[in-house]
Amino acid sequence: MSNLFQNDLYTLDSLKPSLIYLIFKQAESLRKSSPTSLLKILRGKLAALLFYEPSSRTFSSFSSAMKRLGGQTIEYQNPLQTSSAVKGETIEDSAIVFSNYVDAIIVRHPETGTVKRMADIVSIPVINAGDGIGEHPTQALLDLYTIWRKHKSLDNLKGLMAGDLKNGRTIHSLLKGLSKFKSNTVYLLSPKELKLSEKDKKEYRDQGVTLIEITSSSEIPADCHYWYWTRVQKERFDDVKEYEKLKLRFILNKKLVNEKAGEKTLLMHPLPRVGEIAVDVDSDPRATYLDEQLKNGMYIRMALLKMILSK
Amino acid sequence: MSNLFQNDLYTLDSLKPSLIYLIFKQAESLRKSSPTSLLKILRGKLAALLFYEPSSRTFSSFSSAMKRLGGQTIEYQNPLQTSSAVKGETIEDSAIVFSNYVDAIIVRHPETGTVKRMADIVSIPVINAGDGIGEHPTQALLDLYTIWRKHKSLDNLKGLMAGDLKNGRTIHSLLKGLSKFKSNTVYLLSPKELKLSEKDKKEYRDQGVTLIEITSSSEIPADCHYWYWTRVQKERFDDVKEYEKLKLRFILNKKLVNEKAGEKTLLMHPLPRVGEIAVDVDSDPRATYLDEQLKNGMYIRMALLKMILSK
Amino acid sequence: MSNLFQNDLYTLDSLKPSLIYLIFKQAESLRKSSPTSLLKILRGKLAALLFYEPSSRTFSSFSSAMKRLGGQTIEYQNPLQTSSAVKGETIEDSAIVFSNYVDAIIVRHPETGTVKRMADIVSIPVINAGDGIGEHPTQALLDLYTIWRKHKSLDNLKGLMAGDLKNGRTIHSLLKGLSKFKSNTVYLLSPKELKLSEKDKKEYRDQGVTLIEITSSSEIPADCHYWYWTRVQKERFDDVKEYEKLKLRFILNKKLVNEKAGEKTLLMHPLPRVGEIAVDVDSDPRATYLDEQLKNGMYIRMALLKMILSK
Repeated sequence: MSNLFQNDLYTLDSLKPSLIYLIFKQAESLRKSSPTSLLKILRGKLAALLFYEPSSRTFSSFSSAMKRLGGQTIEYQNPLQTSSAVKGETIEDSAIVFSNYVDAIIVRHPETGTVKRMADIVSIPVINAGDGIGEHPTQALLDLYTIWRKHKSLDNLKGLMAGDLKNGRTIHSLLKGLSKFKSNTVYLLSPKELKLSEKDKKEYRDQGVTLIEITSSSEIPADCHYWYWTRVQKERFDDVKEYEKLKLRFILNKKLVNEKAGEKTLLMHPLPRVGEIAVDVDSDPRATYLDEQLKNGMYIRMALLKMILSK
Repeated sequence: MSNLFQNDLYTLDSLKPSLIYLIFKQAESLRKSSPTSLLKILRGKLAALLFYEPSSRTFSSFSSAMKRLGGQTIEYQNPLQTSSAVKGETIEDSAIVFSNYVDAIIVRHPETGTVKRMADIVSIPVINAGDGIGEHPTQALLDLYTIWRKHKSLDNLKGLMAGDLKNGRTIHSLLKGLSKFKSNTVYLLSPKELKLSEKDKKEYRDQGVTLIEITSSSEIPADCHYWYWTRVQKERFDDVKEYEKLKLRFILNKKLVNEKAGEKTLLMHPLPRVGEIAVDVDSDPRATYLDEQLKNGMYIRMALLKMILSK
Repeated sequence: MSNLFQNDLYTLDSLKPSLIYLIFKQAESLRKSSPTSLLKILRGKLAALLFYEPSSRTFSSFSSAMKRLGGQTIEYQNPLQTSSAVKGETIEDSAIVFSNYVDAIIVRHPETGTVKRMADIVSIPVINAGDGIGEHPTQALLDLYTIWRKHKSLDNLKGLMAGDLKNGRTIHSLLKGLSKFKSNTVYLLSPKELKLSEKDKKEYRDQGVTLIEITSSSEIPADCHYWYWTRVQKERFDDVKEYEKLKLRFILNKKLVNEKAGEKTLLMHPLPRVGEIAVDVDSDPRATYLDEQLKNGMYIRMALLKMILSK
């Protein structure tokens, strides 16, 4: 495994499609295992979860992944208030300290690049659980996994991404992930203030993704393989009024699903949602954001932790 | 077990005396087991502890109960600051998210009814660890268990409840618990501002409990089976002055115990106390609030978790 | 073991050199054991970590120590916000509550004497993880252990302590520790505002330590066995300006090391550092504060927990 897999996971850059499929295969195998047989896999392993920013899904799915594999965790849900960071310790020193006690560090941080800084200075694996408007590689993997489980491929897909394409870090990571595969087309639906930046568009296009910007839900094409809806990220706005104006411009509701979704269109959202998906969509069989997409997050993280830590 | 036991436990309503005695029996059996044999019972099981309100006893006894049975936990001691709730997620969505990662959710929440809302939307067991001025069913069970261990019955008892009978959620839950048994008489001692509401009194009387309101400790009858003292709940007051005026109206001290308690009168309190029980009572052999009553909380929660999760 | 070892550990006072060496021996043995064999040692044991003050190192090394030995923890990283302490519960009652659920309590508290108060009231072991400007016995043990591993003795040593000698609790605990051994000389380098108090100096001298105060780094003697640098403790200052003036008076950097350190001089610091050790020293082979000294903290705590809990 070790020749395929980098110790650290702070970016998708180093992950080739072959390795991504291997992670999926691992996840498939783990989800079929019995709870007690899983417990042997990371027995005696310890991971630090350092979450410098609030999170539910990522934190609890990583925590459950470690524990379901028999490992243990040291958890900081707000290190800025409860750790030596309040005394002015650098992030590098914090990383070094933890690296002496645990076998892996899992970090969420509001500032892009922080995870790489930590990974660069310690010898144990450091896993990016989201850094600012940067990357969120495990989220991308779970999203790709969710699409792959449904459509059996990550090539030749037609998808829709909607909402806050500028600040949504899951959008960036998923586009980066898709760009590793062949002939993907993505329709981009967002208020003009929240469009993907020109720089980002160029980057993903250079990597082979076809991006088509649309401005109204009436332009959504038929038969998308997935719709990936996102929340407008309040915490990235300086001006609350601007946020209020934009937050519910595009809403995914039953009417829109009936009009535009195909029979096999996966309805996805990284959560939390704050109104941009109406609850009347929840019971639609194509909706995956409240069950399979969440569960896949746990299995992908279990797969990664196994591959990184059980060498 | 499953035909006797509801998956969820957000109210005492569904618990019949026969089931309550079965829980006690289970608790008795667990307290006699060796620490290492206990570890097998919930091996591979994971519970989320979501405490939206500060707590020591309930939180740590649930946490120790899971861990002593070999299970594991994901713990949020203040989800409003450290989870997606800060981003505006509904309590229903939060419940759904956790239900994809864990085997049970244990919730404390300041708002009555929240736990039921969560239980209604997810398929895994949801356990009420206290919701607002609503119910606190596991506290009632541990209180009933404490009385039962001493007096071998929950019928035909004469008890005293003192302090904040209006806001004390443990009072409500214990009265509800006692009302399931036969011929219970409860003397109620409180400042008139903190009396049990007329509505509550009617409810418990309709269920067969004899309630006798008294206004002075001189009226406490001889030979009570238990005295259940409570703290005036500062956090339920809008006016601090009103709180200060009432908080120490009735104090349980050595003098009162000597004058009014019987030889077998259990001295109980759900804790924390803030002056309404003098420390000179702590060493009284009838005082149970600093040892047996606390320990019983852990064993009752172990029993419940075993019965709910080890099916 | 029980006749050698006190149940509680809130002070170094009760620890004789013979017992300290036994702890070191235990730590040496544990660091050579395999991760999975360690898991049997505290299987089924539960410790409460009550940290009323932020900490990274002490908290996470205690937490990892318990978990690496197969034990489990109930963790409060800020009990004043998340526990019954907000409702006005006394520290004694809090200790009693936890003592009913767990097998040991590990406490960090901003107020000197608190840990002893807790230890005095409960029957389970209480371990001091630092109380105010009082003691920090496990830090002293790990510091002594670090020196002992390098120099094979704790007698006849010549050391330097620099920085905040007035408020630095690790300084006090290490001096107390050294005073148990023979013929130790310690050079004290600090701004005059942060000197060891006359009372403290008298105390350590009475116990046999030779203390020599110096005022400039030019006076550091050759061939010290260790340099123990410390952070000026902002949280102990009322006046921020005074803090700013003093915080970087003495800096440990490559230049100073080259000029004054001996070949075998251990470079130590309890961390966190906030500028008083330049990063250019980190790669010096004599620097121990970013690896061995940290790791020793975990092994010492594992040794103590084993000796206290696995009886």
